[in-house]
Order: sequence, then structure tokens, then C-alpha cells
Amino acid sequence: MPLLPDLPDLGGLVFSAGGGAEGLAFADALLSLFILFLAAKVGEEVFRRINQPGVIGELLGGFIVGPFALGLADVTITAEVFAELGVVILLFTVGLEVRIDDLIAVGPMALAVGAIGFILPIIAGIGIGLAIGEDILPAALIGLALAATSIGITSRVLSEMGVLDRAFSRVILGAAIVDDILALLAIGVLSGFAEGSLGPETLVTLVAGLAFVGIGLALAPLGRRLPRKVFVWPKFADTPVVPVFIIMFAGALLAQFVGLAAIIGAFVVGLMVAETPVREEVEHGFRPLLGIFAPFFFAVTGAHIDMSALLDPQLLIIVLVLTVMGVLTKLVGGVAGSLRLGRWNAIVVGLGMSPRGEVGIVVAALGLSLGLIGGEIYAVLLAAVILTTLVAPVMLQWAIPKATRDERHHGGGPAARAA
Amino acid sequence: MPLLPDLPDLGGLVFSAGGGAEGLAFADALLSLFILFLAAKVGEEVFRRINQPGVIGELLGGFIVGPFALGLADVTITAEVFAELGVVILLFTVGLEVRIDDLIAVGPMALAVGAIGFILPIIAGIGIGLAIGEDILPAALIGLALAATSIGITSRVLSEMGVLDRAFSRVILGAAIVDDILALLAIGVLSGFAEGSLGPETLVTLVAGLAFVGIGLALAPLGRRLPRKVFVWPKFADTPVVPVFIIMFAGALLAQFVGLAAIIGAFVVGLMVAETPVREEVEHGFRPLLGIFAPFFFAVTGAHIDMSALLDPQLLIIVLVLTVMGVLTKLVGGVAGSLRLGRWNAIVVGLGMSPRGEVGIVVAALGLSLGLIGGEIYAVLLAAVILTTLVAPVMLQWAIPKATRDERHHGGGPAARAA
Repeated sequence: MPLLPDLPDLGGLVFSAGGGAEGLAFADALLSLFILFLAAKVGEEVFRRINQPGVIGELLGGFIVGPFALGLADVTITAEVFAELGVVILLFTVGLEVRIDDLIAVGPMALAVGAIGFILPIIAGIGIGLAIGEDILPAALIGLALAATSIGITSRVLSEMGVLDRAFSRVILGAAIVDDILALLAIGVLSGFAEGSLGPETLVTLVAGLAFVGIGLALAPLGRRLPRKVFVWPKFADTPVVPVFIIMFAGALLAQFVGLAAIIGAFVVGLMVAETPVREEVEHGFRPLLGIFAPFFFAVTGAHIDMSALLDPQLLIIVLVLTVMGVLTKLVGGVAGSLRLGRWNAIVVGLGMSPRGEVGIVVAALGLSLGLIGGEIYAVLLAAVILTTLVAPVMLQWAIPKATRDERHHGGGPAARAA
Repeated sequence: MPLLPDLPDLGGLVFSAGGGAEGLAFADALLSLFILFLAAKVGEEVFRRINQPGVIGELLGGFIVGPFALGLADVTITAEVFAELGVVILLFTVGLEVRIDDLIAVGPMALAVGAIGFILPIIAGIGIGLAIGEDILPAALIGLALAATSIGITSRVLSEMGVLDRAFSRVILGAAIVDDILALLAIGVLSGFAEGSLGPETLVTLVAGLAFVGIGLALAPLGRRLPRKVFVWPKFADTPVVPVFIIMFAGALLAQFVGLAAIIGAFVVGLMVAETPVREEVEHGFRPLLGIFAPFFFAVTGAHIDMSALLDPQLLIIVLVLTVMGVLTKLVGGVAGSLRLGRWNAIVVGLGMSPRGEVGIVVAALGLSLGLIGGEIYAVLLAAVILTTLVAPVMLQWAIPKATRDERHHGGGPAARAA
């Protein structure tokens, strides 16, 4: 292994695994990781000292050292992998905090929030797309890019504010699953239309996605019967951390394999482990892993921020319209779907569904590769997606205290929590 | 971020950071990580169940899924980075277990073990090189590849057997530092000779390396005066884990920058943190990190095992001669340098210095790139280096119980420990 890449005269060094370029790429990957991590933590520190959400600081820290600003850190594939594991571990630990029965109890509400919040942005996107002179398919793609929620940022805010046990948090998490399954279906259908072939694969993918989530949720309650020794039977395991890490990683890969987001798989595994007697031990052991991996997710997300579309006044207007519509439609979806929780709780649900993040970017990139949209619309979508991601934590930090006060006002925790 | 690389029709998908090839590389990197980790743990489990060192199982697990056997996992740059962080965290946690005063107490002994164990392999290598008809410089390179110890494997065995607090462990660790500084010097000198220019850079590098270790060891005792709040003053830090991770990472990069191995930097930082009041908290918090990262080091090392040189009977003989001489010279160095500890303790020191690992491979690769040696000798060196790495844990597992019994026999722990 290239342990000494900075030695003098190592120019043409051939490692067993590759060429000199690999040695340099290795050194770059390692240094970039360090810079991204440090930037995330410094950013978080600054924002928390001024009483703003730490996650925004992490995003901006990544942006500042990333390729679209100072260029101190490269977003290497290695950094992407750390980021992915970061959000996978984040959603796994969120799953650990959620009781499966509580999640199923909010099922109908989550279904309503997810579905309404998915359809409204598509309608709004189609409207805006047609208004700026696009055809129906490109317009639908614009809508779809605004439809898919990314739960990473919201999870972090909910966890930071200690409200993961609230009903609104569970509705958001349940709705995110609904949202991801709808995205899976919609992306398949749109790709099929664009290529003129709506094959049975779309149906297969949908069934596989539903089966994954369904089987996971159905199996979870069985965890209650598992004794601790099931998790520590391997000789290499003094604690359940390593075995559970393997299961979480496998769940994430499996979800990705059937077409869902890896984080949905990790979340479902988290739900399952939450039912077992090792929950607290795993939660404790995963805290350092979360502390080391999760900042990469936020820093790398920040390093992807390319705001070049904002420099053109005409595009800027479209970006702002899309952003406002993006937040508003999710807000309406959240409020309409979960009004029973009380006004402020429902608002938090809507705001929590607002960040689009990486799923929106993937949809926009898909549109670009299918030839549905050009570079300008791509840049516009990217900027709008990023803005929804930056705006949400600030609004959540403002709305959550009102929601928790509201809840206490209406007769308090346990009852509202069971809703 | 490419969260959905397995979606249908994502062929030409353009992510914000790169092309479709990047999406595939990302998916491959993630899957390869999982396979390497799983293989390491399954290998460890099998070996521990048959009462063999777990680390050999991890190495063989990596070998089996790696490119030279089944080819299920690629050794991507990402995997190399995980491996590097794994061995960095391993040596950091080893440093946490060592008291700076104890290390300095064994200083003269470590110096003797390190120096004798460095010079003897070079002499042996020159002898063997000349005997097989090489010139003096290539022969010196063969010796140098056999001279540099890699401490990762030994650390793991010492830690697994719970003997890090023994005098022989401290002598091994101290000697490894001496060894690494000598390697730094020797590689510089040899490169200078080969290129016909022995510039002042070699001297600068040596001074920088010595300064790094010297300053680190000199500053370490100051840690005793640091209160816990120094480590948790950032708002993002509930525990010292994340701040200490940053310091450890910085120390590793700095060591690499001055030309030392990254692991030496991490070890020195570990020594420093060991003197502070947060030692136990850090040790506890780093255990999950060690559990997740370290297996990648062993699996990736195993995945690099290329034994093709063993298929040619003539080369096989050279490999075996080099391996035997490699182990014997380190054994003599260890015994000669630390005989005062008692016979079996001194033997453990010698065996502990035997694994060459990645430093030997880097030297061999350097020789290849400088044109000093050809592909055949490179393959031979690689095989010999790997064999020393595989043989050492088995012999350590056999010798350590005798050494600890010996120690108890001679009047017991504390006294012998202080030696």
C-alpha cells in the first residue's frame, strides 16, 4: 500500500495495485478527506456559536473548500463513499430511535403526506415547465426533480434538536419511505416514456421495492424475541457493533440493488435492530461512527453546490420560482396530510419534507442524460434543489419549538406521541 | 451524489461531479468495501475457531476475495484509504496504551534492536543479491526491502493477546520508530545513489523526520496538565472523540509529509493523548472505529498477495532464502538488542519485528521504478515480504505465552514491566 507517497523521487513508483497516478490519487483522496472533515466541523462550530443549525455550517464548510469555491478539496470517489456511508449510518441510527408500532400507527398519515407531497410538486413543475416553453416530458422531469425528498438533512436537524420521538418526526420518516417508492416508480415510468419503451421492468422494480420495505417492516417485530447472544455469537464480536454494521451495510446495498435509496435500506435495518435487546448498546457503539462518517455527507453535499445558474438574472428568476414552489408544495402536502397533529406539527412535517438533496440531483442528471433537458435547465434544477436543502434546516429550527410547545399545550407528550 | 447507481437506464448518467464511469466506480467501490470487510470477518472467525491468530484469517479472507484469487472485490483507491485509516487508527490506539516514560525507559534497548535489526537484513540482502549475480546497488535494494519493519500486524497480535503493557511490546514499538527513521534515511540515500545525485534533500528529510518524533515525544508529557475541557470545548464535541480524530488524522498526514510513515504520526499522537485525562474515554470511543476500519487494512493487505513468483521453482528458492534470512536477521537483532529482558522476551521482540508489510513493498516498487531491479526480483521481494508478514503472527502466538510465563517466573509483572 502506498504509505509513503510523499517520499522524494517516488515519481514513477509502481505499486502492486497500480501506477504512480494511483499513488497520487491515493494521497489526494486522503488529504481531501481530511480537509472536508475539518471544514465541516469548523463550519458547524461557527454556525452553532451563532445559534444557527450546525448542519448548514457543515454544508457551507464543504462548499467553501470544494471545487466551486476555494478548490482545496477534491470530491473524490472515496469522499463520495464516505458521504454515502455517513448518510447510511445516519438513517440507520434514526431507525434505531423509532418503534415499528409507532411508525405503523402513523402509516395512513405518512401515506397521505408522501403522496400529496409527491403529486403537487410534479403538477407545479409541469406548470412552470410549460410556462417557460418546454414540452410536456421535460416539464414532467422538472416536476419530478422537485418531487423526491431527501431525508438526510432533516434527520440530522430532528436528531440535533432531540425530537426524533415526536409524532411529526415519525410522519416525516414514514412519508420519506412512501416518497422514495413513488420516486422509484416515477423515474422508471419517465425513463420508459422518454425511450419509447415502457417495459415490464418498471413493474418488477416497483414490486421489488415494495417487497423490500414490506418484508422489512413485517420481520421487524420478530426482533423482540432475539436474545443478545444472536448478535455476539461470532468470536470476533465482543459487542454487537461489528455484526450489526455488516447487517446495516448489507441492507443498504440490497435496497440499492432493488432500486431504492441505500438509506431506506439502512433505515429499515435500524427499525429492526430497534426492536431487539441490543438497541441501546448498538446506539452507543454507533455514536463514534456517526461522528466520523456523517460530516462527510454534509461536506460532500456542500462541495457539490454549483450556483452558476444564479449569475444569470433570467435563470435566477426560474430558480427562485422553482424553489418557492418546491417548498410550498411540500408544505401543503405536509399540512394537508397531517393536520390532525395540530397546525405547527403539520407545518414541521411539510418543512421536513422540503429538502430535495441528492435524489433531485439524480433526477436532473437523468433528464440530462436522456436528452430531455439541456444544460441550462439542469443548472437551474440543481440550484433549486440545493436551495430547498439550505432553506429547510433554518425554517425547521424556527418551527420545531412552536410545534413542541403546541403539543405540550394540547395535553402533552405521550398522547400526542401515540397519535 | 450517485445514490441510485442501479436504477434502470442510468447508463450515461452525468453526476455533478463526473461521468457515468464515476457512478459505476462508486458502486464498485462500495460493494468491494463490503465484500472485503465481510471476507476479513469470516476469515477471522474461522481462524479463531481453530485457535489460530485472527489476523491471518483476515489476511487470507482478503486474499481469497481479492484480484489474485476469486476476484470478487477490487482493491480500489477507496479501499486503500479505508485500509490506511484502519492501520492509522490501530497504531493510534496502540499509542494510547503506552506510557511515554515507559517508552523512553526502553529507549536504548529499542535503539539497539532497531539498528541491529536494520543493518543485518541489509547485509544479508546484499549477500544474497551478489550471490544471485546482481550488482551492488540492486543487492542493497534487496537488503533494504528486507530491513524495514511494518508494525501493523504485530500491533494487532499484541493487542489481541492483551500484552501491550509488557516490556517486550514497548521495545518493539520503540524499535519500529527507530526502524522507520532509518528506512527514511536509507531510501533517500539509495535513491540519491541510483540517480547519481545525493543532494541535501536527504539530510533535510532526515532532520524533519527526527524533529517530528523528537518534538512529539518531548511534548507528550505536557498532556498531563491538559484538562478535559480542552478536548470538548467545541460545541460539536460532546465527547473528545471527534476532536481527537482530527488531531490523529493531522498527525498522520504531517508524518507522511515529512517522509515518515503515517502510522508513526498516529502512534506519536496516541502517546500524547495517553498522557491526558481523556485517555480512557478516547480509548472507549475509538473501539467501534477500530472495529470498522482496521479489518480493511488486513483484508487489503491480503488482497495484494501475489504469489506468482512461487510458481517458478528457481525463484521459489530465492523467495524462501530471503524469507528465512528476513526472519532470522530480525530475530538476531531482537535477541541481541533486548537479551536483558530474558530469552523468550527477546525472541518475541525479534519475531515482532519480522513482518515487513507495506514498507518492504514500497521499497521494492521504488527499486522497480528506479530501474535497479527487474520484474522478477520485484515479484520475489513481494513474495518474501508477504511471507514474513504471514509467518510472524503464527510464531508470535507460539512465543508470547512462553515470554509471559518467563516474565512471571523471573519475579513478575511490575518489575519486568519497568525494565
